[in-house]
Amino acid sequence: MAPRKLKVGVAGLGRMGKRHALNFFQSVPRAELVAVSSPDAAEREWAREHLGASGVVVYEHFDDLLKQAGLEAVCIASATVVHADQSIAAMDAGKHVLCEKPLATTAKVSQSVVDAAARHAELKVMCGFSRRFDESYRDAHAKMQAGLIGRPCVFRSQTCDMLDTSGFFVAYAEFSGGIFVDCSIHDIDLALWFFGEDGESKVKSVSAVGITAVEPGLRKYNDRDNAVGLIEFVDGRIVHLYCSRMMAAGQEDTTEIIGTKGKLGVNTIPVANLVRVYEPSGIRHEVPKNYWDRFKNAFTQEAIEFTDCCLNGTPVPVKLETAVAAVKIGAALQESMISGRKIWFNSEGEQVDRAQL
Amino acid sequence: MAPRKLKVGVAGLGRMGKRHALNFFQSVPRAELVAVSSPDAAEREWAREHLGASGVVVYEHFDDLLKQAGLEAVCIASATVVHADQSIAAMDAGKHVLCEKPLATTAKVSQSVVDAAARHAELKVMCGFSRRFDESYRDAHAKMQAGLIGRPCVFRSQTCDMLDTSGFFVAYAEFSGGIFVDCSIHDIDLALWFFGEDGESKVKSVSAVGITAVEPGLRKYNDRDNAVGLIEFVDGRIVHLYCSRMMAAGQEDTTEIIGTKGKLGVNTIPVANLVRVYEPSGIRHEVPKNYWDRFKNAFTQEAIEFTDCCLNGTPVPVKLETAVAAVKIGAALQESMISGRKIWFNSEGEQVDRAQL
Amino acid sequence: MAPRKLKVGVAGLGRMGKRHALNFFQSVPRAELVAVSSPDAAEREWAREHLGASGVVVYEHFDDLLKQAGLEAVCIASATVVHADQSIAAMDAGKHVLCEKPLATTAKVSQSVVDAAARHAELKVMCGFSRRFDESYRDAHAKMQAGLIGRPCVFRSQTCDMLDTSGFFVAYAEFSGGIFVDCSIHDIDLALWFFGEDGESKVKSVSAVGITAVEPGLRKYNDRDNAVGLIEFVDGRIVHLYCSRMMAAGQEDTTEIIGTKGKLGVNTIPVANLVRVYEPSGIRHEVPKNYWDRFKNAFTQEAIEFTDCCLNGTPVPVKLETAVAAVKIGAALQESMISGRKIWFNSEGEQVDRAQL
Amino acid sequence: MAPRKLKVGVAGLGRMGKRHALNFFQSVPRAELVAVSSPDAAEREWAREHLGASGVVVYEHFDDLLKQAGLEAVCIASATVVHADQSIAAMDAGKHVLCEKPLATTAKVSQSVVDAAARHAELKVMCGFSRRFDESYRDAHAKMQAGLIGRPCVFRSQTCDMLDTSGFFVAYAEFSGGIFVDCSIHDIDLALWFFGEDGESKVKSVSAVGITAVEPGLRKYNDRDNAVGLIEFVDGRIVHLYCSRMMAAGQEDTTEIIGTKGKLGVNTIPVANLVRVYEPSGIRHEVPKNYWDRFKNAFTQEAIEFTDCCLNGTPVPVKLETAVAAVKIGAALQESMISGRKIWFNSEGEQVDRAQL
Repeated sequence: MAPRKLKVGVAGLGRMGKRHALNFFQSVPRAELVAVSSPDAAEREWAREHLGASGVVVYEHFDDLLKQAGLEAVCIASATVVHADQSIAAMDAGKHVLCEKPLATTAKVSQSVVDAAARHAELKVMCGFSRRFDESYRDAHAKMQAGLIGRPCVFRSQTCDMLDTSGFFVAYAEFSGGIFVDCSIHDIDLALWFFGEDGESKVKSVSAVGITAVEPGLRKYNDRDNAVGLIEFVDGRIVHLYCSRMMAAGQEDTTEIIGTKGKLGVNTIPVANLVRVYEPSGIRHEVPKNYWDRFKNAFTQEAIEFTDCCLNGTPVPVKLETAVAAVKIGAALQESMISGRKIWFNSEGEQVDRAQL
Repeated sequence: MAPRKLKVGVAGLGRMGKRHALNFFQSVPRAELVAVSSPDAAEREWAREHLGASGVVVYEHFDDLLKQAGLEAVCIASATVVHADQSIAAMDAGKHVLCEKPLATTAKVSQSVVDAAARHAELKVMCGFSRRFDESYRDAHAKMQAGLIGRPCVFRSQTCDMLDTSGFFVAYAEFSGGIFVDCSIHDIDLALWFFGEDGESKVKSVSAVGITAVEPGLRKYNDRDNAVGLIEFVDGRIVHLYCSRMMAAGQEDTTEIIGTKGKLGVNTIPVANLVRVYEPSGIRHEVPKNYWDRFKNAFTQEAIEFTDCCLNGTPVPVKLETAVAAVKIGAALQESMISGRKIWFNSEGEQVDRAQL
Repeated sequence: MAPRKLKVGVAGLGRMGKRHALNFFQSVPRAELVAVSSPDAAEREWAREHLGASGVVVYEHFDDLLKQAGLEAVCIASATVVHADQSIAAMDAGKHVLCEKPLATTAKVSQSVVDAAARHAELKVMCGFSRRFDESYRDAHAKMQAGLIGRPCVFRSQTCDMLDTSGFFVAYAEFSGGIFVDCSIHDIDLALWFFGEDGESKVKSVSAVGITAVEPGLRKYNDRDNAVGLIEFVDGRIVHLYCSRMMAAGQEDTTEIIGTKGKLGVNTIPVANLVRVYEPSGIRHEVPKNYWDRFKNAFTQEAIEFTDCCLNGTPVPVKLETAVAAVKIGAALQESMISGRKIWFNSEGEQVDRAQL
Repeated sequence: MAPRKLKVGVAGLGRMGKRHALNFFQSVPRAELVAVSSPDAAEREWAREHLGASGVVVYEHFDDLLKQAGLEAVCIASATVVHADQSIAAMDAGKHVLCEKPLATTAKVSQSVVDAAARHAELKVMCGFSRRFDESYRDAHAKMQAGLIGRPCVFRSQTCDMLDTSGFFVAYAEFSGGIFVDCSIHDIDLALWFFGEDGESKVKSVSAVGITAVEPGLRKYNDRDNAVGLIEFVDGRIVHLYCSRMMAAGQEDTTEIIGTKGKLGVNTIPVANLVRVYEPSGIRHEVPKNYWDRFKNAFTQEAIEFTDCCLNGTPVPVKLETAVAAVKIGAALQESMISGRKIWFNSEGEQVDRAQL
């Protein structure tokens, strides 16, 4: 007799939602995908075609999904603007929650999810920072913890998407929270993970600049297509970030952790696979075209581990509070980029005028 | 109602058998592992512990496995000496067969499997050349077929295992068929795949030399720990092979396909993941420690596609005849290495004295 | 009869001066090293031993060097604090000048060299930004000019020295002008070269943060051992810089030029030579230990081209004005790092309060 | 007063001769190029234009070159067929000799140069195996000698030229001695250097196969455009070689030295410089287009060290006997490739029937 499986629903069936749904459907041995929901008719049609024959129920409304008999956990992959509301509603309905990043585009709303989780200590609630589940990042983190690089002091990381001339990124910018909240949020989360999530990484200041090099239309949403940000911590440690929508070759998500005794580089030269082409113009290799090509194994691992935590009652591997801290920093960088001001924080983590420090 | 799954059994639970069993157990959505068999008590104990709770039946005898109710397909991962017998018995019992490489250590016995498959045209029978399912090799093959390198003329490939000082390889050599049959078989299969499996790759001669650099004990089984082989085809095309049990850094399976207009390299510099360590001695990255670390995704893909072929009634993606051709070449290289003679083939593929050509 | 050679003197025989002297002595076919000078007795002793036998005259005082019969050109490789004075004195004595970077640690003093050069239009005066003569940077610049990456918009560059625990960098910091003026000056010069030196690269703002991760003693000279800086140009283009004295593996001087259609990377993974070591911990390659190991060919090329310009009467390949612009930006970054303030410039290139913009 | 310089003449002004002449002319501080010779009028015209103004005398006949007043050393860069005669004539005229590889296309003629050198013990006589002077090969050799890889047992090396569709290689093949003597001679010399030149590297057998993949015209000179060779030493150690005239991307000269504890790779992925281009098709770097782009620094170093040996009376760094051994092996590989026979050697190094062993 097979051991029991976690009954999972997926909310949202856009680009990311479809991937989460298929993941739980076929790549998580201990999970059973029982239902999905989407307000979009075409997305529901996709679900009926790809999942319906196997008995996955397809809903229009998220509230109905929550009422699905036997449902134990929900993966929230809907639009960012409803992440927090749906997460809280799911918790109130007694479901475990795996919510896509970011929890919200503001720290305040993100915090409301943490507060709700505090009221539901029996539930597993995790924000899906997929890179934490990537084997290369994990290997780097383990090496750092083993002391290979001494004390990490400088952190450089970039999330750079391939150029997409379809206009997608402009439309997307209206609700994304901006490039620092949408892209760099991953790098900020990694920085907090590598520098310490237990209070040792208090932000002192952030500053950022940006440019619309290929998509001037982003300006109407106060966004940019390339941006660079600096984060200074109270203890002097430094994070520098680059985010872009303009890479020619593909997804270039590179990280360096620089310590007093060495350095760790993750994906310094992006590669799609192990093939090299030797041709008259030189030697060439390809690059993953998007974050999914780069991180699909990490998404599967994330789903597997979240499922295990729910079934085994063990703590989730990513602290929910860090997701709030990351949004706070990302939003401040976005604000600095748009206003041109360097932004300072006091020891309580509140934005203040520098004179007040 | 979920679609039906293929009921699969796995024969043999050694190093490779365990991996196949776990693969079918948890990573092949359309397969259901129903039974396993092993003559080894410790291996059966492992199976009861890891698979038994989920209802997988554990047998001592392969014959009993074949009688398992509802069984549709068998994965043969037992010792090489019984590959052919078990494959034929499974076919005679009406089961689809995925047999680990090589079918046998001689071309004659390998051919008996092909003959049996010919008598059971309704069954899917495939020899598990895992590299055919590796995404990098597939990308390289697709690029070659798209014309990127012109006509492929020279093929260089190596299968090089990490140094293992435990004596494992000596014991293993007694029944492995020798390093060309055990290791280079993969490279030979790849050469036939890239050069053409439909009669265009007729072997003219083979020659090989070997050395026992670290394991003199191999000599008693007529084996070597490092060897180099040359294959010359009738149309002049050339394959050169290197196999070794002595790599310091890890598994180094590298292939180059050299054409009249370009070259494709697969895994030219082996890498374990995307991490680089910067330390006083320089910049370092790790290497997969064994073939499983390198090819685990390929094994999963192999199991998924074999399952799909059985359920859908489509042809298997690897020609069974090629598995015989590969053993024939590998065995000839082994013979050349031990005898010191260059070995010639006539146009019927029979070994002949050169004077007879 | 051999063609005439340029008679050259080298001022300063410290780390850099010795290298320049040997360069002109043996690697510049059209130059003849006739004299050197140094206020340091040990350095003069070195010169007598290595150059004296060949007739190179060794002086204590720079003024005496200038009086050397037949002297046509001077390479100024003395301490930064005397770069400007010696350059001007040399010009006033009618000598061509190749001056090590930076011209001075302030823009004002640097400008005095430019003013002097304007008074001596017949002389060749060049600031030695060696990377402009490096074949990789030149190849990247040519590719950019050929349009390979579209319009360059974001420039990332770092000058990172190997960790030196001898205390050298602390003593050096007293007169170096700080890490942005000493190290990043190269990156700033490159940024101006790639972004345009003819007025199209007007700085709008700079901001920087730094840390003393390994050398707290640097604080007494208002310096840091790791720093990150941002430069924003009026047209929106962005430069981000990293400088460090803490690399474990060696000199890591990496540059990326990111354009609307592609990217150029220079030295993304530093390598000392073409050797890779395969060992149980993985695959390793070494890194140049210092800027000389990395750029020695560029220094030779610089000397060769400077010599050619003097002999042929052709313009020098690096604009002297850019050397002033680079110091101005470097000094502003240093000031921003120490003060914590973001620094703004008006359209005349003067530092102003933001409110004045 | 400048120290005295070695007066050098260069014989032959073809592709290689021009490079040697310019090298001695401008890149070897202790050498003075005094004369050159060439039977080709166009080549002499080139010399008058590029070297004549500086007083270098240009001769038609080699014999006249030898009579040049004060001449002390000759670099023989003429056609391979006259290498030996000119070398011996130069020695008989009392000149030091740096002879391009190979000494001759047969071992017998090569030996005559060694015999002549034995009669002139006071002269420095060296065969120009340029790779011995390459910093990467030297670094690898030093690391091997330091024990990094244990005992070297397998040696893989290739000399692969870029595809040249002009027909040059066909014309060249008439006198080159064939691809193993012309190209692989470098790899063979390296193998002997790494495996030991003092009698520990006795050849037991060689075998080779070749193909004319792009230049069928080579067959009329018994040559091929791609070939693979195996060398087996008496103590079991193995060399495998690949040579080609068909590389798309550029010169690919790669070497691996595989030992019982590790491996050294030299130029595993060829690179022209430190630039990477990121573009829609992926990430690309260029490759040196020919052996000169790859080895020009080694040729300069060779000339500098040869000059030093002549002036200082120190032994030359490359044993002349090894040049004979290399030709012997190369010619045997060529013979094996053409005849299809595996070739055996007895302990005196004579070719024998296997039955005689």
